[in-house]
Amino acid sequence: MNRSLAGIALALAALTGLRADEGMWTFDNLPTAQMQAKYGFTPDGAWLDHLRLATVRFPGGTGSFISADGLVLTNHHVGHGWIERVSGADHDYIENGFVAADRAHEIRVPGLELSTLMGMEDVTAALAKAGAPAAQEAALAHLLQEARDRTGLNCQAVRLYQGGETWIYSYKIHKDVRLVMAPEYAIAAFGKDWDNFSFPRHDLDFSLFRVYEDGRPYTPPHHLAWAGAGPKYGDLTLVVGHPGHTSRLETLAQMEAYRDVLNPAVVRSLERSLKVLHAFAAQSPDHARQVSGLLMGLENGYKVYVNEIIGLQDREAMAGVAREEAQLRAAVARDPELAARAGDSWDQVAKATAARCAARKDELILAERGGDPLLGFARGLVRLQEQAALPAAQRRPEFRAEADLARQRERLRNLDAPSPELQQVYLELQMGEALEALGSTHPYPAALLAGRTPEAAARALVAGTRLREPERRAQLLDGGAKALAECQDPLVLLARQLETLAQPLRKQRQDREAVIADHGARIANARFKVRGRSVYPDATFTLRLSYGSVETYPANGTLTQPFTTFGGLFDRADAWGPDAEDHSWALPASWTAARSRLDPSTHFDFITSNDIIGGNSGSPVVDRQGRLVGLVFDGNIESNAGAYFFNPKVNRTVAVDGAAILAALDKVYHAPHLVQEITHK
Amino acid sequence: MNRSLAGIALALAALTGLRADEGMWTFDNLPTAQMQAKYGFTPDGAWLDHLRLATVRFPGGTGSFISADGLVLTNHHVGHGWIERVSGADHDYIENGFVAADRAHEIRVPGLELSTLMGMEDVTAALAKAGAPAAQEAALAHLLQEARDRTGLNCQAVRLYQGGETWIYSYKIHKDVRLVMAPEYAIAAFGKDWDNFSFPRHDLDFSLFRVYEDGRPYTPPHHLAWAGAGPKYGDLTLVVGHPGHTSRLETLAQMEAYRDVLNPAVVRSLERSLKVLHAFAAQSPDHARQVSGLLMGLENGYKVYVNEIIGLQDREAMAGVAREEAQLRAAVARDPELAARAGDSWDQVAKATAARCAARKDELILAERGGDPLLGFARGLVRLQEQAALPAAQRRPEFRAEADLARQRERLRNLDAPSPELQQVYLELQMGEALEALGSTHPYPAALLAGRTPEAAARALVAGTRLREPERRAQLLDGGAKALAECQDPLVLLARQLETLAQPLRKQRQDREAVIADHGARIANARFKVRGRSVYPDATFTLRLSYGSVETYPANGTLTQPFTTFGGLFDRADAWGPDAEDHSWALPASWTAARSRLDPSTHFDFITSNDIIGGNSGSPVVDRQGRLVGLVFDGNIESNAGAYFFNPKVNRTVAVDGAAILAALDKVYHAPHLVQEITHK
Repeated sequence: MNRSLAGIALALAALTGLRADEGMWTFDNLPTAQMQAKYGFTPDGAWLDHLRLATVRFPGGTGSFISADGLVLTNHHVGHGWIERVSGADHDYIENGFVAADRAHEIRVPGLELSTLMGMEDVTAALAKAGAPAAQEAALAHLLQEARDRTGLNCQAVRLYQGGETWIYSYKIHKDVRLVMAPEYAIAAFGKDWDNFSFPRHDLDFSLFRVYEDGRPYTPPHHLAWAGAGPKYGDLTLVVGHPGHTSRLETLAQMEAYRDVLNPAVVRSLERSLKVLHAFAAQSPDHARQVSGLLMGLENGYKVYVNEIIGLQDREAMAGVAREEAQLRAAVARDPELAARAGDSWDQVAKATAARCAARKDELILAERGGDPLLGFARGLVRLQEQAALPAAQRRPEFRAEADLARQRERLRNLDAPSPELQQVYLELQMGEALEALGSTHPYPAALLAGRTPEAAARALVAGTRLREPERRAQLLDGGAKALAECQDPLVLLARQLETLAQPLRKQRQDREAVIADHGARIANARFKVRGRSVYPDATFTLRLSYGSVETYPANGTLTQPFTTFGGLFDRADAWGPDAEDHSWALPASWTAARSRLDPSTHFDFITSNDIIGGNSGSPVVDRQGRLVGLVFDGNIESNAGAYFFNPKVNRTVAVDGAAILAALDKVYHAPHLVQEITHK
Repeated sequence: MNRSLAGIALALAALTGLRADEGMWTFDNLPTAQMQAKYGFTPDGAWLDHLRLATVRFPGGTGSFISADGLVLTNHHVGHGWIERVSGADHDYIENGFVAADRAHEIRVPGLELSTLMGMEDVTAALAKAGAPAAQEAALAHLLQEARDRTGLNCQAVRLYQGGETWIYSYKIHKDVRLVMAPEYAIAAFGKDWDNFSFPRHDLDFSLFRVYEDGRPYTPPHHLAWAGAGPKYGDLTLVVGHPGHTSRLETLAQMEAYRDVLNPAVVRSLERSLKVLHAFAAQSPDHARQVSGLLMGLENGYKVYVNEIIGLQDREAMAGVAREEAQLRAAVARDPELAARAGDSWDQVAKATAARCAARKDELILAERGGDPLLGFARGLVRLQEQAALPAAQRRPEFRAEADLARQRERLRNLDAPSPELQQVYLELQMGEALEALGSTHPYPAALLAGRTPEAAARALVAGTRLREPERRAQLLDGGAKALAECQDPLVLLARQLETLAQPLRKQRQDREAVIADHGARIANARFKVRGRSVYPDATFTLRLSYGSVETYPANGTLTQPFTTFGGLFDRADAWGPDAEDHSWALPASWTAARSRLDPSTHFDFITSNDIIGGNSGSPVVDRQGRLVGLVFDGNIESNAGAYFFNPKVNRTVAVDGAAILAALDKVYHAPHLVQEITHK
């Protein structure tokens, strides 16, 4: 009942009051009138520049500079894979955490690169002048190269509104990044996968890195000041970060395909991987350590995909999508110019989407993720050599410029080879899935298996390959076409076969995606014409601002409390005890020991009405002065439908309170030097 | 995802493992094989007698003797109305709580009667011999009177399995009951209506009464020992109490009527009452005190009805009901004898149910609850005189025996008159609802309003009546037919009009209910023939045993913690602060003061898989030794569908942990004498 009373109250607020806090807005197109009306706040140019330049992009996430000496705050789960990389069996920083006693003890993380968005340029109009798509592509390549030459920055094309706008974003790349501090996994992800996407929540999901330049701590042009206290209930909260991917401007046919075919297929594949990798982890602590980061990511993805499906099964929400689409199609049909350009675009997208669903099984050969990283290396190398041999204009976009080639090469160089036992598991998984989906006579599983069982085929490859040796991989990477052509490593031989099979499928996919991109852009352009820029573009892992406030939501028959506290953490630990559900709610020893030193009323995590999605992990939550008050690390379970639509009634962002981070650094981790660096106290 | 993983796990457990802990079992028909197989426990006769004789029935709830001196434990919300009754503006035991310093300070509660079930006798076979329904009714009246004469107890007919079985239950009635201890409302119902039916929960929902006999504390033949500690996760939990009403053996047509017509009508009526009474409460603290118990009951009922509707909208569950019904109908159709007796019973019930839906608005005149208690008194008196004037055999069942008449008279005598302002509100509500549903020309609103507005009509009645005076009511009660006939009080004049209008409708309803009862019994009998006594009867506010264990359930994207702690209480209070949502999570001063004395890890509330429903409030939770480990006070939000079907995956009972009650008595309420009496320590 209260669920429904609160629902009524919130629905009334939505109708009678101000607009929902929806939107992942680009910095050039903020809904300032709405923000001003609801929160009495309009960010000015200096405020926006400050936030943009204090924010960094992590691989798959976000972070922020929080000191003049290049200290970077992000989530533990964003840093997880990197913390794992610098860990070892005898120094397990995932399980035990890590605090650098001083800067000399900060640990360089190989391969980790952070980027700061230095500039954004709208090139839509310039490209439009170029005419046909191919000419536009060439013009874009030219503009990108020009931007690189001019700025010396890493310049990337960014397509917004399904291609309705094209921008060039220029990033400064930081390549010397060092681990400064990480809490134990058990407190960073307290409640483990059970509590993931839930609230009330008690996770200290942060880690600290530092950017170096020329061997010295880097001085960023901007960094965030730390607010004196965390936010209060109802306070305005602003989130800056890199939301990864949403499908809110996609068509109903696309959403139905995600719901009925594509997401369920991903879910089945993840189920298979999780089962096998959990069994692997159960064999020994060392096995567990090898896959802990991977498992965390897969569990997270699984929960996301399943809850996306649940969200897409919401008839009311899908009826809303259908209604909005019908209105737009009607508006397009009424306007002869729009109709000529986009009248049949929905049908074209639907047709290409149906083809995508039909090709799903054959295209398993294109999906290397979850397979063996060493086979992935070999296939990547084969592709790199093929592409490098072509003139730039004939290469695929991701290989086009010299910088692209260098980046691809670097990506391959930074590979972490799995142990032989883990490689066996990866290969068997990949082979088993291909066999089951396609049958033994299909050329893809036939090439993988060569008539053997997955287990035997994998064992032969694991025994025969030398790619596990970094020197061998470096030789192949640096030896050019000749070294690769002469290589008789069984993984390289297999990679050549697979790439030959994959090429036509990759071409078909590219063509299909071009149709979807083209007609998506026509629809987006039509939407522009009809609606103006009152809408925000789908997330593209580029910088966005979201506004909201600390806000409850109805769940579980009551109102969800807006904050949790340290007292609530111990409550949950006491209630379950340390052994329940594979130690999911077991506190690390440091926290048990610190219990009496901690104020139980300290705010730990909180929820806000901000509109975020994966990629926003590690985003700073700031107040109207731009000071840091919290750290985004999750959404609630209801937020998973946010990939497709924002439901203001229940969609909530979950953040660590700044007060909890400071108290933990001070009382649990005995790191006064970090507290001092952050707060100047 | 985890929701669905856990769902799969629990579904598998249900399929492969042992049966769900479903059922509110009568003491004569326990599922001992299931209990033994799952929990290794079979209660023997002595165990059952001990539990039965240590349990008492409260008006609308349950309690238990917990000392040799007649101390009774129940919920605060079961005692609420009675605590309110002995409170006053200058001694508000609801807001401030109450602890009797010694027995001399225990407060007698007028009108409160508790009953203990002394004996149960199955008279089904004896009645069957009597033949036709009317003859059976006469035989039952005879058996009841015989039982009363023989035992000197209060003997009541109990119909189980929709009339498939008839029993005589004999109760010892305790009429001198005194208030011993009550915590403050703010901690008894921490989270107020928001947290009602939710978990994690932090309510100290208990109160203590004492039964006296001949002016001295009563020595019950049995009382419950207090276990040394509360239950652990997974422990067997047994619940004895008086579940009020379920509709699990009713037909699909009946459930659809509840879902689509009857419950929604109740919800609309409750919405109207809640709105008006909250406005009344907002006028002053004294106004609030006058309706606090009533509002609590209405809010509770509102949440129940709304969530029942949500439960009935569960397509999967309703498909299960339909499937089960179709199977039973098919089995009946295959057996000529059963088919002759019950073949068309489902259709008959459906027809009568449709008539019930159609009559709903006209029958507003029969629904006195929520109307003015003084008008209710007048109508009750008119009915009582009418019935008393008839020969016993022609009276309606609730007036049949002399003892029935005496009980009805006693009920009227114990009336608490509302203040004039509150009476005005009650009358206006009743009039407004009648007017809106039936229009001004319908005889019911016409009689109420006599051409005036509800406000004016109510004002005239409030100003004109003298029934507010207890002496005046006593005169009428004791003055017989003559006093009533001569009475010109406007409420009595109105009551006569309304009763004249109500009589034919009451007759129609009685006939309709007889059809439903008759065919319900035929269906129940057919089910007996097909299934044996493997099923339990619907709840009838009579003594039942439920078994289960402390058990989590999936909600909110995670697993619900099986316990809360005092630390969790302070977490929730700290998170919301004292002012949020009309002080819903404000702690009383006694708890704020006691915070440092309390061990935060003490278990507070817990959840179990027991199958209960309203009426079980105040039921003891006991271990296999029959010792008290907790106190049932609620179900989770998902349990509201339990009126219609038990969903083992999510239906949970919510109880106060025995450890929390002791710690509160000791550390917060400084009542060592009560701790000593309960624990002998």
